[in-house]
Amino acid sequence: MEIKIKLDRQSKTPLYRQIASQIIDNITVGTLKEGVCLPAERKLAAILGVNRSTVINAYHDLEKQGYVTPHVGKGTVVTSVQFREQADSFGWQELLSGHGESLMNAYNFTMSELLRQRDLIAMDSGIAAPELYPKKKFAEICQKILFSEADVILQYDSAHGIRSFRETLTSIMQNRSVEVSPDNIIVLNGSQEGLDLISRILLEPGDCVIMEEPTFLGAIDIFRAYGVRIIGVPVDSDGMVVSRLENIICRVRPKFIYTIPTFQNPTGVCMSMERRQRLLEIAGKHHIPIIEDDAYGLLNYGESETPALKSLDKHGNVVYVSSMSKMLCPGLRLGWMATPPSLTPFVAAGKQLTNLHTNNVLQRMVDLFYREGHLQDHIIRSRRYYSDKLHLMLAALEKHAPRGLQWNKPTGGFYIWATLPENLSAIQVLQEAVKNKVSFVAGPVFYHNSDGHNKIRLNFSYTKPELINEGIKTLCYIIKNSLKDPHKWSNNEIKPMV
Amino acid sequence: MEIKIKLDRQSKTPLYRQIASQIIDNITVGTLKEGVCLPAERKLAAILGVNRSTVINAYHDLEKQGYVTPHVGKGTVVTSVQFREQADSFGWQELLSGHGESLMNAYNFTMSELLRQRDLIAMDSGIAAPELYPKKKFAEICQKILFSEADVILQYDSAHGIRSFRETLTSIMQNRSVEVSPDNIIVLNGSQEGLDLISRILLEPGDCVIMEEPTFLGAIDIFRAYGVRIIGVPVDSDGMVVSRLENIICRVRPKFIYTIPTFQNPTGVCMSMERRQRLLEIAGKHHIPIIEDDAYGLLNYGESETPALKSLDKHGNVVYVSSMSKMLCPGLRLGWMATPPSLTPFVAAGKQLTNLHTNNVLQRMVDLFYREGHLQDHIIRSRRYYSDKLHLMLAALEKHAPRGLQWNKPTGGFYIWATLPENLSAIQVLQEAVKNKVSFVAGPVFYHNSDGHNKIRLNFSYTKPELINEGIKTLCYIIKNSLKDPHKWSNNEIKPMV
Repeated sequence: MEIKIKLDRQSKTPLYRQIASQIIDNITVGTLKEGVCLPAERKLAAILGVNRSTVINAYHDLEKQGYVTPHVGKGTVVTSVQFREQADSFGWQELLSGHGESLMNAYNFTMSELLRQRDLIAMDSGIAAPELYPKKKFAEICQKILFSEADVILQYDSAHGIRSFRETLTSIMQNRSVEVSPDNIIVLNGSQEGLDLISRILLEPGDCVIMEEPTFLGAIDIFRAYGVRIIGVPVDSDGMVVSRLENIICRVRPKFIYTIPTFQNPTGVCMSMERRQRLLEIAGKHHIPIIEDDAYGLLNYGESETPALKSLDKHGNVVYVSSMSKMLCPGLRLGWMATPPSLTPFVAAGKQLTNLHTNNVLQRMVDLFYREGHLQDHIIRSRRYYSDKLHLMLAALEKHAPRGLQWNKPTGGFYIWATLPENLSAIQVLQEAVKNKVSFVAGPVFYHNSDGHNKIRLNFSYTKPELINEGIKTLCYIIKNSLKDPHKWSNNEIKPMV
Repeated sequence: MEIKIKLDRQSKTPLYRQIASQIIDNITVGTLKEGVCLPAERKLAAILGVNRSTVINAYHDLEKQGYVTPHVGKGTVVTSVQFREQADSFGWQELLSGHGESLMNAYNFTMSELLRQRDLIAMDSGIAAPELYPKKKFAEICQKILFSEADVILQYDSAHGIRSFRETLTSIMQNRSVEVSPDNIIVLNGSQEGLDLISRILLEPGDCVIMEEPTFLGAIDIFRAYGVRIIGVPVDSDGMVVSRLENIICRVRPKFIYTIPTFQNPTGVCMSMERRQRLLEIAGKHHIPIIEDDAYGLLNYGESETPALKSLDKHGNVVYVSSMSKMLCPGLRLGWMATPPSLTPFVAAGKQLTNLHTNNVLQRMVDLFYREGHLQDHIIRSRRYYSDKLHLMLAALEKHAPRGLQWNKPTGGFYIWATLPENLSAIQVLQEAVKNKVSFVAGPVFYHNSDGHNKIRLNFSYTKPELINEGIKTLCYIIKNSLKDPHKWSNNEIKPMV
């Protein structure tokens, strides 16, 4: 049974009501069918990291509304449709398009979001450190532009984004050795929007897409929503194993190759120059587009810089997507694409029809943040700060790791990727970890085929430096304990969407 | 020949380069095929409202890049592909999905955008008066929240939008008699995004959609991009002629009905209560969803308020879409949907996969703008101001109108809808008008079937009050003149995308 629940602990809505309303959503969309038993209260409480009484309250609420019925011996059972009080019986599900249905299947709540709670050492996030957010400068700049540029920035603008911000983005990309014209940049509401736009423009249901395995789960979700077949290519310490590529291309004729070559999510690895060259060569020869996701490209803590794939693009087949979310902060929802010139009008058309253009205010705010030199300083500061956190986490792992736990040593990005010893289940370790107020992301979300059951992703960007050692120590203790008794957990009845 | 050119007069890119680069786009996507003659320089200059030398420079630029060749007697001809310097020959067009192709066909630059220049009396826009933009309050609030709430608003948030803004939106909708829970609101990057989301979720190529005729061109474009067949239902002074509806529904089984019942774009009419009831009854009976676009709902200058369709929804089949663009300002790109509860999870899934969520900063800014009472004041002020402008324009029409020109007298919204006398062509009148520094939108863009050739839409929200009389006077003079010699213009060689 798969059940999708995401708690927002900053919301004013009580947790029990959040749980109840999301179980109703699950019933409504058919994830929870009538006659099915809801998980035992204690079990759901453990997975969600809430008190048992919260789940009990949620189940009572559902019972009052007629969605579930308690059965002695059996537990809490989803009521059959005709007994439900149905204020809303229009039956939208019958009207869904194929894409609408795929969207629901692809829609995925990560354990990561599920677990963000204040008293947790959260190593499960993908979030830039809030203590770095440049709130003072943002406040100053935003006040200035809203006052003095209101006539322009509160107006409609071009689908591409405001010109001066696109010029700024070309300068930023020069740090990744990419030379493009502002004419071929489209400003986005986050880089996810770029993946969606390129999918709209290129993908038909039944097409094939090649991705690294493991890879960014948002990309898996969006491509899956377009009804495509995903082919994974493994990643090793030099990035995507491109030697496998040509064979696959000849067999499946993919629509494009999606890659995060630099400080990959979740593995943290950086593709070698040799592999980059080879990837471009193979894709060019076979006339396959490459979608390069460079969200972590500037978060480099090592000595040498590896240029973006886009900077080596000779065939005009590399689409570059990046974001302010990792290098700055995610709540602005600002990303961008740099496209080959002959693709630009298609992307601009898609952008215009989808939502006209990205808001001008935040574009201009970040534009000035760069033009006044603050973004450059911010990135230098971030690199230093994240590098320190990375080394704290690596040191803690050295100190506390049980025999058999393996991890890599990235030189950039946000993540350490680890393999649990003796084939332990990451999901089961996670359940114990949450009880002990520590979190991470279990491997399977990053695999289109739910592989990676003994892999874990540890984030070091978000956790406060003073908590990193404690978090890793607790986690290692839990792993050690479960090594002593690997069978002490039964198979989990609820499969959290991780 | 259709050629798509849009000039941004605030850009630092010279106009001639904008023209050249967009002609290249047209050549690239195949709108301008090899061997085709570009329009005569003088003619293109007139349509774009630029100096002839600007067009000459653009054509020289194209010639240098190998895209066109001047031919004596023939003019400027698009060069055949093999002679072009092609840095970028990847051939993306061959890789397009069906949706990607439809997007390009639907992509439409309006004459409206094409003509926005500083020295023009622009009655072609759909823009809230910039002189009303609350720049001082926005600047104050934005500074405050970026400083004191940075940890929250610069973070990721829910796909639905931030909770407190959704609560504010429920209060705003109460002014339209709509009672919904914040749980069933999704905050959008403008209301266009809502039309796209609902299309993704519900539409398959080949489906039918019912729209008013004429209607909002952005809606025509987006539905067309999804490959649907559009069925128009005429509008009279009481709104959509719903008596036609049942017949059409039985024949074509539409996926939904899209309507702008209140102060419709472009006609300005408000659907009568009787028709609203009848529309809901018919749609409910036949199990057809209604998409209600209420962007102008609060811009009422009359005595009585007509409640939104959504407020009368008994079947749970009305999806409500609205926007801050008309009541506040468009550059924020903020809109929202209120959905029936059982549709909400589908829309949230679509929103999350498309771009995670709308940025938090501007949501919270407008949230506080409302909570501090400013939005209410702003709307009262806007109503008074637009009502004055409307009456100035109506008075000017009374004074200057030639015999046979007919127009309606709206009680809200942004537009007056007029019919030219003696079947004059709106596009030809527009060409003369632009030469005389006056603009409006010619009717055909608002018809899915390009009807309405003698209709014009006059906007009164954007033009400065002191210019309204002059603008209408000039326009009426041009109409009178063309009545004297309706055949003096040859068929225009360029068909502007209006």
